[in-house]
Amino acid sequence: MEKLNPWYVTGLVEGEGTFAVSFSLRRRLTVGIETRPSFSISQNEANLELLKRVHAYFGCGAIRYSRADRTYKYEVRSVRDIMKRIIPHFRRYPLQGAKARDFEKFARICEMVHRNLHLNRRHLREIIEIAYSMNPAGKRRHRKGDLLRVLGEDKG
Amino acid sequence: MEKLNPWYVTGLVEGEGTFAVSFSLRRRLTVGIETRPSFSISQNEANLELLKRVHAYFGCGAIRYSRADRTYKYEVRSVRDIMKRIIPHFRRYPLQGAKARDFEKFARICEMVHRNLHLNRRHLREIIEIAYSMNPAGKRRHRKGDLLRVLGEDKG
Repeated sequence: MEKLNPWYVTGLVEGEGTFAVSFSLRRRLTVGIETRPSFSISQNEANLELLKRVHAYFGCGAIRYSRADRTYKYEVRSVRDIMKRIIPHFRRYPLQGAKARDFEKFARICEMVHRNLHLNRRHLREIIEIAYSMNPAGKRRHRKGDLLRVLGEDKG
Repeated sequence: MEKLNPWYVTGLVEGEGTFAVSFSLRRRLTVGIETRPSFSISQNEANLELLKRVHAYFGCGAIRYSRADRTYKYEVRSVRDIMKRIIPHFRRYPLQGAKARDFEKFARICEMVHRNLHLNRRHLREIIEIAYSMNPAGKRRHRKGDLLRVLGEDKG
């Protein structure tokens, strides 16, 4: 399997990649909300081989099949892997189009999560504001106002 | 305007580019059918700057606005430009995914058109067969059978 050219990977991601940050309500967490960044590329079966080469290129993440969309998705959810492998790639071979703005917001959030700031109400509020200013990747499970309300609740 | 990296362009086209061959009925042509190859990339307004850089990279074609789709389309229709600028790029920096198969069919057709073989019924039949084996780019105006029937008519 020949290694993909780094600039080819960036070009592919410009069109096909998704930088997303989603949130889940988690009562057991002090802040009540889990922050979940992910980087992904979805393709139909004809490009499964290509996805495997992208997977090999980044050396992290996994490929999953989505029965609902009938697509294969290469996805990296580990913040450690995102910090170590994904973000450095796009710093060195930057996106050239509108997606660069989403990447910058995504990178900022991942850096905050990496420093555990998402476990702090004030910083989590900032993370939510940044995330909801990104291009929506599919449907949001929660409205921004609902998340901010959860944060506003006194958990004492 | 900084020149785009050639491999970035190939990666972008892997996801966002279209190699298409369409046909129009033209009574004035001896074969009755016009063959129109085109290479294009459509993007929304947020990526208009990027399209301009792709335009500058290839040094041919034009950008048009499609009111229907609210998108901008960079398109190359001139077979001379396709032969001189587009095909050589993808020979040197090849597509890595399923689109490579479409490109090969597209290149084969453009080479035939360049040699004026599309003005010959037998060769045009072959061109139509190849074109209709490519991934459909949008709706086809004519069914393959209808085109082949036009070719079959005795125009004597």
